[in-house]
Amino acid sequence: MSEPVFVTVLERKVLGKNDALAAANRRRLGEAGVLAINLMSAPGSGKTRLLEATLDRLRDRIPLCVIEGDVQTDNDARRIARHGVPVVQLITNGQCHLEAALVGEALDRLPLRPGILVIENVGNLVCPAAFDLGESLRVVCVSVTEGDDKPEKYPAMFRKADAVMLTKMDLLPHVEFRVEAVEEQARALRPGVRTLRTSAVTGEGMEAWCDFLLDRAGPRTAPGS
Amino acid sequence: MSEPVFVTVLERKVLGKNDALAAANRRRLGEAGVLAINLMSAPGSGKTRLLEATLDRLRDRIPLCVIEGDVQTDNDARRIARHGVPVVQLITNGQCHLEAALVGEALDRLPLRPGILVIENVGNLVCPAAFDLGESLRVVCVSVTEGDDKPEKYPAMFRKADAVMLTKMDLLPHVEFRVEAVEEQARALRPGVRTLRTSAVTGEGMEAWCDFLLDRAGPRTAPGS
Repeated sequence: MSEPVFVTVLERKVLGKNDALAAANRRRLGEAGVLAINLMSAPGSGKTRLLEATLDRLRDRIPLCVIEGDVQTDNDARRIARHGVPVVQLITNGQCHLEAALVGEALDRLPLRPGILVIENVGNLVCPAAFDLGESLRVVCVSVTEGDDKPEKYPAMFRKADAVMLTKMDLLPHVEFRVEAVEEQARALRPGVRTLRTSAVTGEGMEAWCDFLLDRAGPRTAPGS
Repeated sequence: MSEPVFVTVLERKVLGKNDALAAANRRRLGEAGVLAINLMSAPGSGKTRLLEATLDRLRDRIPLCVIEGDVQTDNDARRIARHGVPVVQLITNGQCHLEAALVGEALDRLPLRPGILVIENVGNLVCPAAFDLGESLRVVCVSVTEGDDKPEKYPAMFRKADAVMLTKMDLLPHVEFRVEAVEEQARALRPGVRTLRTSAVTGEGMEAWCDFLLDRAGPRTAPGS
């Protein structure tokens, strides 16, 4: 066995301007009665699939809208639009995260009324953590096909998470993944974080997830009423 | 069905300083006869597992060393060290990609001799694409449990790839993933790119991958000779 060697570097960015724009978004969303979710994960963790299953379950119970963030393509907005929910696609053209200014532009194009807005961030477990968008809740997804050391490897993302969702639970029998270990890491980084185990394929955990969202959104009038 | 709306933003960064340092790394590696691989993917695509399986197959055939890049933890260097290969762990403390300067520091701590160096980049399909490290080959991994639109969603990463590896092929029977579609997207972005289908669990494609590396490394003396 050889001995590993360690080198460490430190870098911090000034984010003051983004924070001011995020505060403006938060005020605007709050005044409109919108619960805004910043949905984050690595690429391919199943955010869009989860979102599609969520829209189908909640569409008749509360007004919904979606902002899709991607480096490139409008694939995800097209998928969401099929579910009959207002959606804006933000294409960052190479930028690795959404910023508050861009989300503010999307808000101009959406019907803001009491309900839930889901902002699906760019697939990236690092950069989006540093950019407040004005959301009410931060939700981080980890699929069980990823390694089970993701929270400790990407701590900034999990330190600010209000909920951590384990996705693709239907694949658990086929992989080595310690569910409890990931949940423990998440709680160590953010004590009291809500953890959920879900599968958009089997529906596992989807009711608990939808109840969590409805509970946070508070009492509302039904859509169209 | 609702209509999606599109907003686009453009941002480019000046990378001149990194490019100069990458050129210095490339010269140094070239003079030492080292084939350097920049191994990139989303978090949890199985880079480290693939690397472990690769080291076991190649260790007795060619000198090897490894640089591990992570936002946090030394988990991966510990895993690699168990395979008896020299390894340096770079911890970026929040930074989303490796840069040439940091890789240069790692090179100071490794035995540079004719053989193969694998640099496992931070798990991120966006930012690492923009930073030349001085590598000879860029290899991008996509696991079959991720969505099958990754190349078109993250084109910068795939436009510069010399090889695209589909990993976790053993899980293919359990997921919806169009292998050919991903390979076609990869070839459209980088004509002539080498594509490989692999599983570190079953060993599928591992011989072809190792042959690809040995072929690119060229004729060498055996380790210790």
